Amino acid sequence: AETKKIAIIPGDGIGPEVVAEAVKVLKKTEELFGYRFETETGLFGGIAIDETGTPLPQDTLEKCQRADAVLLGAVGGPKWDNNPKELRPETGLLGIRKALGLFSNIRPAVIFDCLKEASTLKPEVLEGTDLIVVRELTGGIYFGEKFRRETENGQEAVDTCVYNVKEVERIVHQAFQIARNRRKKLCSVDKANVLETSRLWRETVNKIAPEYPDVELEHVLVDNCAMQLLRRPSSFDVIVTENMFGDILSDEAAMLTGSIGMLSSASLGEGSFGLYEPVHGSAPDIAGQGIANPIATILSVALMFKLSFGYHEAGDLIEKAVKSVLDAGHRTGDIAVDKSKAIGTTAMGDLIVAAM
Amino acid sequence: AETKKIAIIPGDGIGPEVVAEAVKVLKKTEELFGYRFETETGLFGGIAIDETGTPLPQDTLEKCQRADAVLLGAVGGPKWDNNPKELRPETGLLGIRKALGLFSNIRPAVIFDCLKEASTLKPEVLEGTDLIVVRELTGGIYFGEKFRRETENGQEAVDTCVYNVKEVERIVHQAFQIARNRRKKLCSVDKANVLETSRLWRETVNKIAPEYPDVELEHVLVDNCAMQLLRRPSSFDVIVTENMFGDILSDEAAMLTGSIGMLSSASLGEGSFGLYEPVHGSAPDIAGQGIANPIATILSVALMFKLSFGYHEAGDLIEKAVKSVLDAGHRTGDIAVDKSKAIGTTAMGDLIVAAM
Ligand SMILES: CC(C)[C@H](C(=O)O)[C@@H](O)C(=O)O
Ligand SMILES: CC(C)[C@H](C(=O)O)[C@@H](O)C(=O)O
Repeated sequence: AETKKIAIIPGDGIGPEVVAEAVKVLKKTEELFGYRFETETGLFGGIAIDETGTPLPQDTLEKCQRADAVLLGAVGGPKWDNNPKELRPETGLLGIRKALGLFSNIRPAVIFDCLKEASTLKPEVLEGTDLIVVRELTGGIYFGEKFRRETENGQEAVDTCVYNVKEVERIVHQAFQIARNRRKKLCSVDKANVLETSRLWRETVNKIAPEYPDVELEHVLVDNCAMQLLRRPSSFDVIVTENMFGDILSDEAAMLTGSIGMLSSASLGEGSFGLYEPVHGSAPDIAGQGIANPIATILSVALMFKLSFGYHEAGDLIEKAVKSVLDAGHRTGDIAVDKSKAIGTTAMGDLIVAAM
Repeated sequence: AETKKIAIIPGDGIGPEVVAEAVKVLKKTEELFGYRFETETGLFGGIAIDETGTPLPQDTLEKCQRADAVLLGAVGGPKWDNNPKELRPETGLLGIRKALGLFSNIRPAVIFDCLKEASTLKPEVLEGTDLIVVRELTGGIYFGEKFRRETENGQEAVDTCVYNVKEVERIVHQAFQIARNRRKKLCSVDKANVLETSRLWRETVNKIAPEYPDVELEHVLVDNCAMQLLRRPSSFDVIVTENMFGDILSDEAAMLTGSIGMLSSASLGEGSFGLYEPVHGSAPDIAGQGIANPIATILSVALMFKLSFGYHEAGDLIEKAVKSVLDAGHRTGDIAVDKSKAIGTTAMGDLIVAAM
């Protein structure tokens, strides 16, 4: 098979620990399927600030640009939280999304049967929940002009939320296509009763909808969506929304699964290139102890295989291996009911590799 | 006692039905406590559009301006959903908030013991949940400049989110004061890792905090807060946040109580004037059937008594009467387990008045 280039970005906190296990899984698929991966590792986030003075070094960006996909651990931590803006890990995250043109963030929220009890929602409400939040990732209030000015009422801060038709079209098309390959239901979330960007969003969705007559479309206001996710999570299939709303709703959706240590995500642009990362953060409180759960990162590899490389069989195999290890009762501390029986990061990685 | 003027705005859908029951409760307190209320009724929302061509007629605004408090039912409905902006009920809502200077929206999310089962959250997670969301109501992206312009990528829409120090200070002081009279915990929610308005917000909160050394302060990012509300609702006391985040989080918080038909809200400005309304909407699907739950509106009267008039004894009495009617097993359709035993709107109102 053709060699695939993967940029590996361990990042901060538990990032390096969980990424190491995902790399074992990558290696195992070379052995099993004859794939060839060429990996380059880059500094990013807090560690990059410490070692190079910037959260997103040019060298790391170039490694990503010449790769077919990027695997990211996690970034950030209290150490850098009070830094000025240019020296914060999040600034690197926003920078890499923009520089790589990753306009779409795909966040599946699925229930792992064996972890249903970990959710704070009632099991009968969660039953059958399997949704994807498609979040616009390079527009909106995240990237609009920001500034301060003096007024008679003290300093004033301004953020600008901007969307043009093209930006809405490309993400909405992608969401319709994802829905078409699933349960054919698309929920577009906006605040069209208040925001001009939301009115443009809704008009654009309605203009595109006739091209997908097989997909059922509903418009839901963001405040109502925050409620409906709690009330009827299993009724959602694909949710598409703008950057800020997507940030909030995808985290709410992730939390209600009860499996936040298990969820992976993809950030995509045009074409097959993508950046893959676990939904959880860098968890500085447990970093370096060898107890972090590597499953979300391992499942991010499965997502990479499917979405960027078309390696569906191998992607399925990884997912099955994870399931079989969980079904056999193995748990890291975050998901263990009996914490005294919890296994560590490398043990979990090894079990999954063995199950493949 | 001095006469209090109350502007009564029934609005649309079930609004008139639930407001009628709240007015009975008002009357009952005149009898029991010797209060004197002078009420004026005004058109607002969809019905005002139909009858006067504008959602917020000048006459209604004047009735509110000369009142000591406003009691609002609910506004909106599908009939007006596709109207141009100036002819939409929501535009009236934003207009009345601004015109009356109601910069603070107080949304208690409490659990009614007898309704705990109605929540989709596990009862053991909900146990002890009793929080208030204090939402800034007249600033931010709701009221900033909005426009469209042509670009090479099609039309572009712009919304502007603006906050000045004064606007943040007044709402944050109010939230600290509310927290001081409760469990003394304040959670300020922002997105300071991305937004300039959020950085100004956080700086201002930190500047004010030393004036309230008895209140424990935490800063939580909005995406994380959407998660933590689900994971540990009972650990929150008072949450203070800007307009858009407050819209989303207060609805999420309301829904997790399982008692959305029971929650009241207050919108306050400087001084004791306030607008009181149920959290639920106009429910056009059940309007006119006499089955709507009037409890949230009745509890809005209790809130009005406490926050605008200082009538604490009467406010407590209303709350106790509601509780005793619920404890006796009476339910409207929305909260009944056995729907065949549900009682109607007026029956519920009469029972509460009788219990007083
Ligand atoms: C760290 C932050 C800038 C980022 C975001 O808001 O996009 C994070 O919350 C996420 O969702 O990936
Ligand atoms: C109707 C709408 C404009 C309003 C808002 O977003 O403020 C509503 O959702 C609310 O929360 O009162």
